[in-house]
Amino acid sequence: MAHLLSTSCCVKISSSYKPHGQPLNQVRTALPTSFTIQTSKAPFKGLVFQGGKVGRSCVVRAAAAPVSKEASAQPRSGSNGSANEASKAQRVMVIGGDGYCGWATALHLSNKGYEVAIVDSLVRRLFDHQLGLDSLTPIASIHNRLRCWKAVTGKTIELFIGDICDFEFLSETFNSFEPDAVVHFGEQRSAPYSMIDRSRAVFTQHNNVIGTLNVLFAIKEFREQCHLVKLGTMGEYGTPNIDIEEGYITITHNGRTDTLPYPKQASSFYHLSKVHDSNNIAFTCKAWGIRATDLNQGVVYGVRTDETSLHEDLCNRFDYDGVFGTALNRFCVQAAVGHPLTVYGKGGQTRGYLDIRDTVQCVELAIANPAKPGEFRVFNQFTEQFSVNELAALVTKAGAKLGLNVETITVPNPRVEAEEHYYNAKHTKLIELGLKPHLLSDSLLDSLLNFTVQFKDRVDRKQIMPSVSWRKIGVKPQTVPAN
Amino acid sequence: MAHLLSTSCCVKISSSYKPHGQPLNQVRTALPTSFTIQTSKAPFKGLVFQGGKVGRSCVVRAAAAPVSKEASAQPRSGSNGSANEASKAQRVMVIGGDGYCGWATALHLSNKGYEVAIVDSLVRRLFDHQLGLDSLTPIASIHNRLRCWKAVTGKTIELFIGDICDFEFLSETFNSFEPDAVVHFGEQRSAPYSMIDRSRAVFTQHNNVIGTLNVLFAIKEFREQCHLVKLGTMGEYGTPNIDIEEGYITITHNGRTDTLPYPKQASSFYHLSKVHDSNNIAFTCKAWGIRATDLNQGVVYGVRTDETSLHEDLCNRFDYDGVFGTALNRFCVQAAVGHPLTVYGKGGQTRGYLDIRDTVQCVELAIANPAKPGEFRVFNQFTEQFSVNELAALVTKAGAKLGLNVETITVPNPRVEAEEHYYNAKHTKLIELGLKPHLLSDSLLDSLLNFTVQFKDRVDRKQIMPSVSWRKIGVKPQTVPAN
Repeated sequence: MAHLLSTSCCVKISSSYKPHGQPLNQVRTALPTSFTIQTSKAPFKGLVFQGGKVGRSCVVRAAAAPVSKEASAQPRSGSNGSANEASKAQRVMVIGGDGYCGWATALHLSNKGYEVAIVDSLVRRLFDHQLGLDSLTPIASIHNRLRCWKAVTGKTIELFIGDICDFEFLSETFNSFEPDAVVHFGEQRSAPYSMIDRSRAVFTQHNNVIGTLNVLFAIKEFREQCHLVKLGTMGEYGTPNIDIEEGYITITHNGRTDTLPYPKQASSFYHLSKVHDSNNIAFTCKAWGIRATDLNQGVVYGVRTDETSLHEDLCNRFDYDGVFGTALNRFCVQAAVGHPLTVYGKGGQTRGYLDIRDTVQCVELAIANPAKPGEFRVFNQFTEQFSVNELAALVTKAGAKLGLNVETITVPNPRVEAEEHYYNAKHTKLIELGLKPHLLSDSLLDSLLNFTVQFKDRVDRKQIMPSVSWRKIGVKPQTVPAN
Repeated sequence: MAHLLSTSCCVKISSSYKPHGQPLNQVRTALPTSFTIQTSKAPFKGLVFQGGKVGRSCVVRAAAAPVSKEASAQPRSGSNGSANEASKAQRVMVIGGDGYCGWATALHLSNKGYEVAIVDSLVRRLFDHQLGLDSLTPIASIHNRLRCWKAVTGKTIELFIGDICDFEFLSETFNSFEPDAVVHFGEQRSAPYSMIDRSRAVFTQHNNVIGTLNVLFAIKEFREQCHLVKLGTMGEYGTPNIDIEEGYITITHNGRTDTLPYPKQASSFYHLSKVHDSNNIAFTCKAWGIRATDLNQGVVYGVRTDETSLHEDLCNRFDYDGVFGTALNRFCVQAAVGHPLTVYGKGGQTRGYLDIRDTVQCVELAIANPAKPGEFRVFNQFTEQFSVNELAALVTKAGAKLGLNVETITVPNPRVEAEEHYYNAKHTKLIELGLKPHLLSDSLLDSLLNFTVQFKDRVDRKQIMPSVSWRKIGVKPQTVPAN
């Protein structure tokens, strides 16, 4: 399985900073060239990178957002901080911090005053190379991203490059960084990817389940008060014909009552891997007293957050292809390039959605209000429900305002899923903690469409149509040819 | 991880048959010395072994049981058999056929007229070596077992030695044997083993989940009508405060109703691996039309079946140690050697139990009445419920009849589980298919106790006490010293 990482990567970091190939908005950049490589006494396959001193000036698009809520980054009772550490900021490890949600989250937390480390194997970038895909937006290397963040804000984010399935590497990151909270985005996160072929299905389940097991063992062994904030998915629930609750449901049956885990009906090997994770985490909370929050996230849209907007080299990735692209983002790209919106089947598939600015807000709320020891807490992390047909109508209307003639076509559904169904999922717990949602408005959709139009020359139209079939998946390794 | 199989085993088979070191009941044996090794055009890391001609006489303890129900082994509508194969027996692959339940099942199905192949990596025997454990009963090598079976009954069971996590090996077994049904016992099946250390936890989940994924892919790719009979466990359900149904529960919630998977609350990495399997299988039934039966088995007791009683070299294994031994079998051994019965905690832990003779009966019933294409069918496979205290009382009473002075002690519970709880689990579906239970009677308990007394000189008393703690599991690899 060529896409498997057998061990943690060894990475060479070039010390000369070069802006990536495709400049954005003619912003010229000069960033620091020095950095520090941390080494460890223990054998260590990964690599630790720390943003170094700012050596040169840096032109940014906007001033750094004020760090208005730094108080929220103080350790809370029950954290690992001892009395004489009370003045230190909470230390948050973001696993998968180079990815779409992880990158935005890492910057947001750093901006809010948390001490942040990113742990990432960078395998998501390898998937793009292997499948011949690319982000709509040009994205800088993780090293340049962090150099830029340091230059723009003066804040350092530590970097550990390696695979959390390698427990020796993960141990080193825990003992070096000593996190108070771990935000775990570090999983293969695409349902279609998990349905490409047998080896990708096996990779997805192995990578996600074993990686999470390792994180649980690392917390138990090294940082038992550390709060695990784990990204799950609303897709774990499937589409039951009853209301979806947040993690648990109280059932009265034959005259007796109990509150039990909400029944799950996942519909891809990826979604199943998240169900497996949830079950494993719940057990360790009970058996070991782990404190965990499972964020069952809906479909994320948008790309800009306060922090990623600060500089072109902080720009987030934006996936529109049939493997990693998700519904609303993909529709915007289709509208931008004049490709019909591709509705799979009847289009009645209804899901929870949220703006990426709410993703970062939700994660911060979970960290700032941690689960109790032994508590397995589940939040449904989305703000609105839409059917695919509703999204297509919204994008069509927004496109018309921009003078785009947006058409919609029905394509055979590559997935196995109900195309017309009841869907009513609860999502009040994060609101109760203080979430202020960015709802999908006309103006937001306008700006998202404008954003995609800005990059439309980078669109590879061959990547738009679905290429992975839930029913046709087989054992033969599939290579998606480069174009 | 030394206990991991990196690839399928390459095994040398000695062509000279020698009875194992510790003769049983002075039965002298002479068995065939020739056999056939099948080879394949495809690269094949495993090894195929077929019982050869009977070259010498064989002294057996009893006549072979009459094959009275061979009709049940005829292919059914919907099987892979074409019209001109109608006279052929159904072909059943027993994965894990060298283990406790698997061996008894393979012989039972062979005796009933099915064409049987055993697929096994033999890793269960390796676990014994590594942990310094041994079966109460002396067990012959798988090769001698199959030679003996051939000699005693004239029936051939094919043998494929390899690891089903190696898909190349598994593909070869499917294409060589062409099963109509797969009975999948081929998992790490001990909860304490999965809680020894991190590497055993990871091994258990990887081995069980990936092995089962591979079986599902093999069925989809090579034998799409093949019926999967998968061994799950009653432990998947945990101990909810409501009745346990068979796989599904109908829930009315906020005025709407749906029938959903029964919520699971597994309490070890082993039990969790079975929950993961169940979820994966359910998805493939829906997405690919796989036909599957999930047998949520209770705690199995007993050792002799009609077939394993035929000759000393067919004798089944009997585990009494703290890692692989299960409650009733372990109590009988403790009574036999004058060790107090070890009740974990309050002893109110209640579970479903069944005689191993019912295990083999249930599996045959599932095969003879297969699931429909796309159906994910769940049967709770046990016949009676007992608490640990009830079992201890039964063994104490039976011991007294044999003149054994049986005492009971309470030991700190090494597990994390409710020690007093409601428990009422349904188990009617296998009865409806024709199961005739062997209930736990005084006479059965007498014979089981007598059996353990017969082998009491083989008992290693150091292995009796629990050695694995749910709470103390850590990342340091544990070596259980040999005695």
